[in-house]
Amino acid sequence: MSDDSETADGGSEPAAPGDDLAWETTDTRIDYSCPGFDIRMDDVRLPDETESDFHYVDEPAAVVVLPLTPDGDVVVIDEWRQAVGRTNRGLPAGGTEPDDDDDYAAAARRELAEETGHEAEAVEPLVTVEPANGIANSVHHYFVARGCEPSADQNLDFNESIRPTTVGYDDLERAVLAGEVRDARTVLGVLYYELAGE
Amino acid sequence: MSDDSETADGGSEPAAPGDDLAWETTDTRIDYSCPGFDIRMDDVRLPDETESDFHYVDEPAAVVVLPLTPDGDVVVIDEWRQAVGRTNRGLPAGGTEPDDDDDYAAAARRELAEETGHEAEAVEPLVTVEPANGIANSVHHYFVARGCEPSADQNLDFNESIRPTTVGYDDLERAVLAGEVRDARTVLGVLYYELAGE
Repeated sequence: MSDDSETADGGSEPAAPGDDLAWETTDTRIDYSCPGFDIRMDDVRLPDETESDFHYVDEPAAVVVLPLTPDGDVVVIDEWRQAVGRTNRGLPAGGTEPDDDDDYAAAARRELAEETGHEAEAVEPLVTVEPANGIANSVHHYFVARGCEPSADQNLDFNESIRPTTVGYDDLERAVLAGEVRDARTVLGVLYYELAGE
Repeated sequence: MSDDSETADGGSEPAAPGDDLAWETTDTRIDYSCPGFDIRMDDVRLPDETESDFHYVDEPAAVVVLPLTPDGDVVVIDEWRQAVGRTNRGLPAGGTEPDDDDDYAAAARRELAEETGHEAEAVEPLVTVEPANGIANSVHHYFVARGCEPSADQNLDFNESIRPTTVGYDDLERAVLAGEVRDARTVLGVLYYELAGE
């Protein structure tokens, strides 16, 4: 309504009150399920009163970990990604579980241990983003794990094809900036740490 | 097999030949369709010979545009995102169409015009990433659009709730680095441009 509903800097999220772009959700249901996620279908009313529906991936929040060793190297995983038909080198990550009770730092430690066999001295939140909010409700909580040492046993699900390895941080950043890393999760984690991490 | 299958720097993609993490795809089909995307189901054979299947989102490649005005501001859009139930401030983007013939720069110009009503003097590729390769075959081609001026008519699909606006580049970068921007597409585009753009 009034000008003070605008944020001062204009760069962050738009103000929510009186949002004339908002859709009204009149009903919702799971329309399809598969082992990795569900598809949710919402009945919606658009701003112009049109009735429509919208389908999107419904999955639990996930954690993504940038694991740094005492030497400043990064623990990454080589992992088969069936959706894109190739082995991806990237940051360890995984979905949260009901028992996590939104303790994302604990989930980050668990995924780090399960996927790489490493334990961290400290785990700190980096940033939280929605990787694909046009088609999914996914939320990724990024963490920096410091002082990572190989001390846990790797513990994979039956269909995870993962090999941990260690790369130099500068090498990984150079590969990201050369456009050689296609995995957005890894690109975002490295760039965010480079610019906003301490 | 031999050590020379490793890349020299270790930071980029792992070597493909003799990949012992790879799955074999024995059959594939569309298992579900909705207006935004399909779900593809692959029958697969894992490295240990286990037979299984894998489901993932199947959608066309998309373009993401970082549109800069002659004054160095950024043209962004406020857009309702039903999957996360909020209005998102972010970079214009959209799926490619069969007629694009993989001309992603042309697709970037089209999406910029349709979503923001702006035309660019020049469009340059920035980076190509997979936003969610654990659950989707999506590929996002990022472009920097320079010299953007309001000269085209906005032309939205019936269910697009979008309002274009202009923000200062420094304000947008500050919001990204303060963790105020949840849209990973925008975070990645701004950070990549900041570190790798000219």
